[in-house]
Amino acid sequence: MRILVLGGDGYLGWPTALHLSEVGHEVAVADNFARRGYDFEMGVDSLTPIEPLQTRLRAWQELTGRSIGAYIGDLCHADFTYEMISGFEPDAIVHYAEQRAAPYSMVDRKHAVYTQTNNVVGTLNVLYAIAEINPDIHLVKLGTMGEYGTPNIDIEEGWLEIEHKGRRDRVLFPKRPGSFYHLSKVHDSHNIEFACRIWGIRATDLNQGVVYGQQTPETGRDDRLATRYDYDAVFGTVLNRFVIQSVLGKPLTVYGNGSQTRGLIDIRDTVRCIQLACEHPADRGEFRVYNQMTQAMSVQQIAETVAAASPDAVVIEHLENPRVELENHHYNVVHTGLVELGLQPHLLSDTLIESLFGITKRYAHRVRPEALLPTVQWRKTASRISD
Amino acid sequence: MRILVLGGDGYLGWPTALHLSEVGHEVAVADNFARRGYDFEMGVDSLTPIEPLQTRLRAWQELTGRSIGAYIGDLCHADFTYEMISGFEPDAIVHYAEQRAAPYSMVDRKHAVYTQTNNVVGTLNVLYAIAEINPDIHLVKLGTMGEYGTPNIDIEEGWLEIEHKGRRDRVLFPKRPGSFYHLSKVHDSHNIEFACRIWGIRATDLNQGVVYGQQTPETGRDDRLATRYDYDAVFGTVLNRFVIQSVLGKPLTVYGNGSQTRGLIDIRDTVRCIQLACEHPADRGEFRVYNQMTQAMSVQQIAETVAAASPDAVVIEHLENPRVELENHHYNVVHTGLVELGLQPHLLSDTLIESLFGITKRYAHRVRPEALLPTVQWRKTASRISD
Repeated sequence: MRILVLGGDGYLGWPTALHLSEVGHEVAVADNFARRGYDFEMGVDSLTPIEPLQTRLRAWQELTGRSIGAYIGDLCHADFTYEMISGFEPDAIVHYAEQRAAPYSMVDRKHAVYTQTNNVVGTLNVLYAIAEINPDIHLVKLGTMGEYGTPNIDIEEGWLEIEHKGRRDRVLFPKRPGSFYHLSKVHDSHNIEFACRIWGIRATDLNQGVVYGQQTPETGRDDRLATRYDYDAVFGTVLNRFVIQSVLGKPLTVYGNGSQTRGLIDIRDTVRCIQLACEHPADRGEFRVYNQMTQAMSVQQIAETVAAASPDAVVIEHLENPRVELENHHYNVVHTGLVELGLQPHLLSDTLIESLFGITKRYAHRVRPEALLPTVQWRKTASRISD
Repeated sequence: MRILVLGGDGYLGWPTALHLSEVGHEVAVADNFARRGYDFEMGVDSLTPIEPLQTRLRAWQELTGRSIGAYIGDLCHADFTYEMISGFEPDAIVHYAEQRAAPYSMVDRKHAVYTQTNNVVGTLNVLYAIAEINPDIHLVKLGTMGEYGTPNIDIEEGWLEIEHKGRRDRVLFPKRPGSFYHLSKVHDSHNIEFACRIWGIRATDLNQGVVYGQQTPETGRDDRLATRYDYDAVFGTVLNRFVIQSVLGKPLTVYGNGSQTRGLIDIRDTVRCIQLACEHPADRGEFRVYNQMTQAMSVQQIAETVAAASPDAVVIEHLENPRVELENHHYNVVHTGLVELGLQPHLLSDTLIESLFGITKRYAHRVRPEALLPTVQWRKTASRISD
């Protein structure tokens, strides 16, 4: 298949592109390097050094003989988006090209507006391009488990069979997300479902859990193929951040009482899920949703798991929660769709965590410790509220 | 109370501002004249002549001695929005300032992107301004019944008590809107609910039905106070358009079989609903939703009602539906909240329709007949779909 990976220079877009290339697909990536720009803005960096995209692509070709195409540009520029899709003629478009950090979207008004505009407009342009250029193209869109929030009912895969006052319907699962970033993905999901309905395009919306891990078989072949390993409080996902804190001998910083439970997934399963979704496309007109996670753990459990695997003594510290989120909530998620397509999950294990310790130790000198503590407060904008 | 009416130069914003002023509130309007601009773009115009805002405001002061303030600017410019809200110090903000036509949003990609960006960013700026300037300000936001779509269950007022696999929750009513415009309002509703949750602001989201009628007691006092009367296929609401078609001796153009059922409301009830919502604010942190409609009718029934009231013989014609929408669907809507606050609905009557005939005949020479037929096709972008 011909597969275009939007956001293909990022934490997950890059390993996904390599994996799809490795298994024999014709791959191209697109990126505007927004993610590299956020580093400059926030004064942070990936713990692992990241080569320029051109170097990464040359290294992959050197090592495997396979070439991956590259389109440099911004999805919000419709001309770029249309020309790329017309030119590459993909069978599937994997769409990671969004601002993806909840804390970044909550910095202030500008960051909220940027996140929603960037994500919603980029996706609208992709939808129109598919509808106008080739509505057979399968859109594989990355959403997040955070779109659902923490309802007091079980979380189904995107749709809900409902009975109300004696009548029945199948409705989009009602969502109550927890940041302007998560909201942008909810907006996307509604727009995509509508595009499937009116234009008959095919889409798979993947509500992904928190990803952990830094290596896939492909990125592990050469240092030049490494993907990002973010540890800062804005872009670092929780397990990766805990590993880095433990290696540095810092306390693991749990927000609130740590009972908040989240879906998790290993980076190696992420790239496999994308492959499965591409190779088993949604039907024409179908808005298909999978919950792309393999297990659920509370933040406290994640901290304790990292602490137990750590060779050194580790302290777990509870900070006042900078987010507005429920603690001690119900969390039971259906996530069988991708397993039915063939996913064999890697569950979180000591082996994985130990391999993360190795990488972390190797690059520990690159850590900027001030980046580990949260600076973005969800309630901050309301700081003038007196009651 | 001090009430700021955003979009106060428009079809409903203007009569709302006059009504709130009439009943004794301190009122200011804000507008960027986008609505007047759409007329130039589409080559259409209100059937009734509309004076410049400054003339309207002077006329109101002449006739009543009451003055209404005016802020000219765009909510998407945060500086304007913040300075206006800091300067006027409203107790309530009534927010009509959005692109409000489904067909306009479906013209093409640019119009979809414009509609979602304009509506979502303008509302985000208002939310941040409230949170940062005075979180006690009550936001009264105009949504639409079209956000819900046509589920096979009864439509509740914004929230739904749900039972699923033996557990219960109260969730946002799951929505499945029918245009990129309607989607923009769904995005707004999610953003507003989140702002209530994290910042403790107060908001009332009014999901309004299709408005009919052209006069309120206030706008009827003087020709210079008239509000818009749109008859074109892009901005004209269905009943107003049918009346104009009947006066012109044109067939009433029903889309599809006409069984599509919609909530309706008289323009005099709209302004009264806004007054009631303002005078009975939501609690701090509350996201309160009312369905602002007073009766439901199918498009066919509306056409037959207009035909029956018409002094001349009227033909009803069925056009191929340019929209993608269900026919012969369930439609039962709860709309008791505003009645509990004191609304006494005007139901659609021959008297109302007859008064519309009078206005229409007076201005019939201004009609551009080519504007009556639909030009925007929901499926158009997908015209290259072969199957």
